[in-house]
Amino acid sequence: MPVLNPSARPVPLSPTLAINEAIARKRREGTPVLALGFGEAGIPIHPSLTRALADAAGRGAYGPVAGSAAVRAAAAGYWDRRGLPTDPDLVVCGPGSKSLLYGLMMAIGGRIAIPSPSWVSYAAQASLTGAGAVLVPTPPGEGGVPDPARLADAVVRARTAGHPIRAVVVTLPDNPTGTLASEDGVRRLCAVAREHDLVIVSDEIYRDLVHDPARTVTSPALHAPERTVVTTALSKSLAAGGWRLGVARLPDGPFGHDLRARLLGIASELWSSAPAPMQHAAALAFTEPAELVEHVDRSRRLHAAVTRAVAGRFAAAGADVPRPEAAFYLYPDFGPLRDLLREEHGVRTGADLTALFLERYGVGVLPAGAFGEPADALRMRVATSLLYGATDEQRLAALAAPDPASLPWIAAGLDRLTEVLADLQAASGHVLSPAVA
Amino acid sequence: MPVLNPSARPVPLSPTLAINEAIARKRREGTPVLALGFGEAGIPIHPSLTRALADAAGRGAYGPVAGSAAVRAAAAGYWDRRGLPTDPDLVVCGPGSKSLLYGLMMAIGGRIAIPSPSWVSYAAQASLTGAGAVLVPTPPGEGGVPDPARLADAVVRARTAGHPIRAVVVTLPDNPTGTLASEDGVRRLCAVAREHDLVIVSDEIYRDLVHDPARTVTSPALHAPERTVVTTALSKSLAAGGWRLGVARLPDGPFGHDLRARLLGIASELWSSAPAPMQHAAALAFTEPAELVEHVDRSRRLHAAVTRAVAGRFAAAGADVPRPEAAFYLYPDFGPLRDLLREEHGVRTGADLTALFLERYGVGVLPAGAFGEPADALRMRVATSLLYGATDEQRLAALAAPDPASLPWIAAGLDRLTEVLADLQAASGHVLSPAVA
Repeated sequence: MPVLNPSARPVPLSPTLAINEAIARKRREGTPVLALGFGEAGIPIHPSLTRALADAAGRGAYGPVAGSAAVRAAAAGYWDRRGLPTDPDLVVCGPGSKSLLYGLMMAIGGRIAIPSPSWVSYAAQASLTGAGAVLVPTPPGEGGVPDPARLADAVVRARTAGHPIRAVVVTLPDNPTGTLASEDGVRRLCAVAREHDLVIVSDEIYRDLVHDPARTVTSPALHAPERTVVTTALSKSLAAGGWRLGVARLPDGPFGHDLRARLLGIASELWSSAPAPMQHAAALAFTEPAELVEHVDRSRRLHAAVTRAVAGRFAAAGADVPRPEAAFYLYPDFGPLRDLLREEHGVRTGADLTALFLERYGVGVLPAGAFGEPADALRMRVATSLLYGATDEQRLAALAAPDPASLPWIAAGLDRLTEVLADLQAASGHVLSPAVA
Repeated sequence: MPVLNPSARPVPLSPTLAINEAIARKRREGTPVLALGFGEAGIPIHPSLTRALADAAGRGAYGPVAGSAAVRAAAAGYWDRRGLPTDPDLVVCGPGSKSLLYGLMMAIGGRIAIPSPSWVSYAAQASLTGAGAVLVPTPPGEGGVPDPARLADAVVRARTAGHPIRAVVVTLPDNPTGTLASEDGVRRLCAVAREHDLVIVSDEIYRDLVHDPARTVTSPALHAPERTVVTTALSKSLAAGGWRLGVARLPDGPFGHDLRARLLGIASELWSSAPAPMQHAAALAFTEPAELVEHVDRSRRLHAAVTRAVAGRFAAAGADVPRPEAAFYLYPDFGPLRDLLREEHGVRTGADLTALFLERYGVGVLPAGAFGEPADALRMRVATSLLYGATDEQRLAALAAPDPASLPWIAAGLDRLTEVLADLQAASGHVLSPAVA
């Protein structure tokens, strides 16, 4: 009987997989679960996209590894309209930006600096490449961009130790915090990257979901165009995560062309191409017809309204909650309740806290540790998007509602959250004042 | 200006990518190209599958990493009907069997023995995992299964050298040779795998394309069920390569469950899931409704007729051609023409020969070196499927034709091949007798 190779590289346990399995288990046990753990956009795919996919269903040929000329040209146009002039030959399409990020890490080679906290997969991917990640904390309120001075320190230390850092990943806007780093933070990050010759990988998958339409996202590709790779996908603003389609924009110049050749060599062996029918639909999506722009606008307003409402519930219960600025995430900190949580619930770590939420209350969220933070950080990521409804009818009503938080099913989720948070504090009799940032 | 990390792991140059780019370049130069380099099935996707995909176009959610319950159950049924009883919980769906094979190599860990010759991506993937592959020649006429005695030797040598081999890949039926290993060969391979505790990864993507419907494929999962992983996909028999959908069947028992956990951990970080709409269509495909069985039957007859015709042209020109038994490949050996090719054309290596085919004649094929064979092997893989037509109308006519080789567009391709092969010999005045095996 074979056994697993004991010397095989350890496989990181995916927190997303773990929470989804735990939620499924609770549901099999008959426990109703409020699932706030998973980064799904929670809205239906727009009919013009499903029509485009259906029209292209017969496309069975593999097609170019880099993606069709049509999808690459459309993605270039998408970036052109955001102040990032793009050569379609430097666009690479893949089966989700997740696969592209892994391919980029392999193509760049070496250690990767990533923000702490940051999306669960960066560190796991860096570990799977064999090189590993170095976590660099982000400044308060500037999620997604490592603190530039600490990044410079980490780079020097890693070089001295003989494991040089070759790249830094930034997330603009950020998952898990739902915040957007400032232009100044991005500029300083670019200066450090230039000084220490780092490639910047800028994950801009939430770019079109900044709640305030007047705020713009500053891409490092503006300030360090020679070294910045930008990625995005259909998964978040267009809610097509299950379609598996992403694009990367490589820097102009010889480095970008060399990186492209390596990335395509890897892509050819790992995934062949993005699914061809989805490339056809993505070519439509990236041209941004009016109905899709309107759809994304509505989803942004929905995310803004519901994250604000959920943040209010957490703040009322005494958690510190950075104001959600983008996407459908918030990142409350239960640090102010640390003593109460330890005394009343035996909670010492972030994982204890989220286990309490799941096992006692049927609320599924992810602990800060899943995002690279220390085990004792009592923060958690709350994804609001699964509150929007259980059916497409409910989700469409949520998109259309002027005050979505008052829709009965969303209000019920919010009320359940209030109940849970009240119970968490109940035994203690502590009285806590709201502390929304 | 950043430069590529000089110490980054080398990225294998994909021969598929290279030949496709070379063919595109020739076409841009205005040269008509007979493209016989790429392993595409060359037939349209059946309308019942495109309808199923269109029906599921709205599926935007990520869904389970392992694939939907429906696609896993359908794939289990597919294997049940082939004498391999399958637990749907041990089926993992992914974006193509290519990605699954890479994930499996990472999950198993360590070096992988692969046949020589074998599909271009096995060695490249093993190299990208960092562990590397060990090439083991196949016996004459038994492509896809390493010679068992030579495999045992390689395993012992690798263990002694401190780089143990953990797994062996087999291809049943085989790409590039288009042959099918015997049951005896498979049994002996299984015995070696058991003796040396190797996992067997059996790539059975061409299983349903054995030309003689009376011949059955012996899967190692029959003789070494505790250690064999089987993979297949929609790409070849159903011509949906561009859809990116494959499935893996893991062995029953504790090892299979452990391997599943590792594979899913990797899958979650590398690709999330197979595209959801394709999973819906694949659930239909793997139930094998009558119209799809008929479609696959027709494609098999078409592949048999055209590979036979093409083999005849190569044999008439003096090449040794193992009789094509499956899929749409043949693997002629120009060894008998070695002197002529060197004297008349300066050809010394397989790459010289295929470069001559492409540059002088506009015929795109892949050299044996791309499949792991020595540089001086004058073999080449010829994929016949792109002869079937340039339009869906032509391809459907080819599927329906009792004698497809006589259709004008297929006959024209065959005639061009005869011309090229005649010219290759012309200067010499050699007279060669046909040598079909």
